[in-house]
Amino acid sequence: MLKITKPTLLLDKSICIRNIERMATKAKSAGMSFRPHCKTHQSHEIASWFRDFGVTSITVSSFDMAEYFVHAGWRDILVAFPFNPLEINRLNELTTIAIISVLADNIEVIDFLQKVENQIGLYIDIDPGYGRTGIRSYQFQQIEDLQAAASKNPKLEFSGFYCHAGHTYKARNRSEQDEIHQRATSDLSALKKHFDGYNPRVLYGDTPNCSVQTDFEAIDEITPGNFVFYDLTQASLGSCEESDIAVAMVCPVAAKYPDKQEVLIHGGAVHFSKESLNIDERQIFGKQVNRTPSGWSTMQAGAHITSISQEHGIVGLTKEIFDRTRIGDLMVFHPVHSCLTANLMRGYTTLEGNVISMR
Amino acid sequence: MLKITKPTLLLDKSICIRNIERMATKAKSAGMSFRPHCKTHQSHEIASWFRDFGVTSITVSSFDMAEYFVHAGWRDILVAFPFNPLEINRLNELTTIAIISVLADNIEVIDFLQKVENQIGLYIDIDPGYGRTGIRSYQFQQIEDLQAAASKNPKLEFSGFYCHAGHTYKARNRSEQDEIHQRATSDLSALKKHFDGYNPRVLYGDTPNCSVQTDFEAIDEITPGNFVFYDLTQASLGSCEESDIAVAMVCPVAAKYPDKQEVLIHGGAVHFSKESLNIDERQIFGKQVNRTPSGWSTMQAGAHITSISQEHGIVGLTKEIFDRTRIGDLMVFHPVHSCLTANLMRGYTTLEGNVISMR
Repeated sequence: MLKITKPTLLLDKSICIRNIERMATKAKSAGMSFRPHCKTHQSHEIASWFRDFGVTSITVSSFDMAEYFVHAGWRDILVAFPFNPLEINRLNELTTIAIISVLADNIEVIDFLQKVENQIGLYIDIDPGYGRTGIRSYQFQQIEDLQAAASKNPKLEFSGFYCHAGHTYKARNRSEQDEIHQRATSDLSALKKHFDGYNPRVLYGDTPNCSVQTDFEAIDEITPGNFVFYDLTQASLGSCEESDIAVAMVCPVAAKYPDKQEVLIHGGAVHFSKESLNIDERQIFGKQVNRTPSGWSTMQAGAHITSISQEHGIVGLTKEIFDRTRIGDLMVFHPVHSCLTANLMRGYTTLEGNVISMR
Repeated sequence: MLKITKPTLLLDKSICIRNIERMATKAKSAGMSFRPHCKTHQSHEIASWFRDFGVTSITVSSFDMAEYFVHAGWRDILVAFPFNPLEINRLNELTTIAIISVLADNIEVIDFLQKVENQIGLYIDIDPGYGRTGIRSYQFQQIEDLQAAASKNPKLEFSGFYCHAGHTYKARNRSEQDEIHQRATSDLSALKKHFDGYNPRVLYGDTPNCSVQTDFEAIDEITPGNFVFYDLTQASLGSCEESDIAVAMVCPVAAKYPDKQEVLIHGGAVHFSKESLNIDERQIFGKQVNRTPSGWSTMQAGAHITSISQEHGIVGLTKEIFDRTRIGDLMVFHPVHSCLTANLMRGYTTLEGNVISMR
């Protein structure tokens, strides 16, 4: 058993590889390319596990990440964030080594991209109703203007459309999620037809849709990220089973409060993040799983972290679990949002005890 | 003007020093020692600014931080977190170099502390009604048992009581906050009297109380942390003015959405954290201030970050501000919770362009 004395992010490599394999197989079966988003793991070692499944292109969400993965040997990277013109120098540096693609959803950005020194790929960001970024797919004129402006610069290769249906995270049930997906894919289908002469590629891919949907008409490439680990949010959405969650935080128990049937763990907002989930009308920050000699088991229903501050986590327990929990024990919790937890922890410990570094 | 191209945490050193000086002066005037909490800044350089105001002892909330500050030359450190027995080896290592004090609120921990190899200070953690950790001050028997158990180990020096009235963060108005403070200090006064024979020191100190209260009867030492930077939460509680906030995030504008009068900034949950504040019934993640050649100005009412995901922030603007904001501009925001923002950013850039490192 690993010697753990402080909050530690455990990674079950076998679950992780299984998640990668499942998504790679799904993409392949549907005839789609697979360009996984690396913002969740931010680790060149974990990215390398995708290579065994034929992956050669990746998605990231910042130039810091793009730089990191270029240095790790990746040569085809989409920076899936509307291009920030202040990053022009880094874009020019990276394109001397790798194929970099960027997003645009404002025509001004096409002007800024006059300064690109090497060929880049350009995807137009399409908003499927999520409302965060992008152009609504029915705004053909606006999309045409962008595409036309881009076509005037021989260094910009209009590659197609990128669409992130992030509102699936707000769907209250499967039928709402299906509706989001059907609407998005049908809109993208119409868009693709409209721009048929340019042979655009359509990139799509939040984890919920890529995990549960089966009809990917018009989609050429999927770009999900979170599925590599999944988390409690994804399990609550039905994207995965809890047994598919590949990461868990191990936290020492530092105090017990019999009157409240609560324990204090060392594990707070700087470990888990402040992301919470409402389960049975309670706000929770992590869910307990049972620690086993080789990792964890989700066999038994767990307790929840119900309150969190910078380094403190408070866990309410049933009397039975409270009575057998001792100060100095280690408790294990699945995180609510694995992307934010991983980003805070800055590294992983596998069940075999290997440390995996991150950006 | 600084050359900023990506999310960057700015620090106005003059405001920071002013905050430090104000708190140091307040402690001195009230005849209290000052043991500032370093969890907010986590930086040896910023900690060194306290030395000019006579500070020689500090508070931290983890052994990682204790180790960092011992290596930076600090020799009197309180780890203000109920002692986690799994950290016994690090405690023994650090006590060969520095005076380390720990908290306890469970008698089992006193047993674990049989393993200490060098003298340590022991504070009993008192819960003033916050409900996170500690023993209620009126539970004399429980406190006496702890103190008696500690006194059997000559390596444990019973130093007194530590009390964090974190429920001031939930006070809805000044009168509720005053009530929390009066109740806490009066309880601590009774406790001190009860243990008079042991000459206990009373440590106290959340930022709201230390900032606004004036009567510190029974308090020997204050341990606030957040005041070094303050933030929107503190300003909303009345602990400070917005002009006392010493940190601000600079974020590039990457896209504009005229239909929604929103802009996209590069600045998300991995920069600000997911900590939010309710202002006028809206949930916000940061508040815009005006950028000036030398830093920022709070003179004009700002816009808010109203939605946040991993790298994305969405800012709703008035028509006037929207019209004059351009893609590629930099916008400046005060964070909701500076401790979490600093922890994520892992470093500061001063207005003079110096980079200050963190743990």
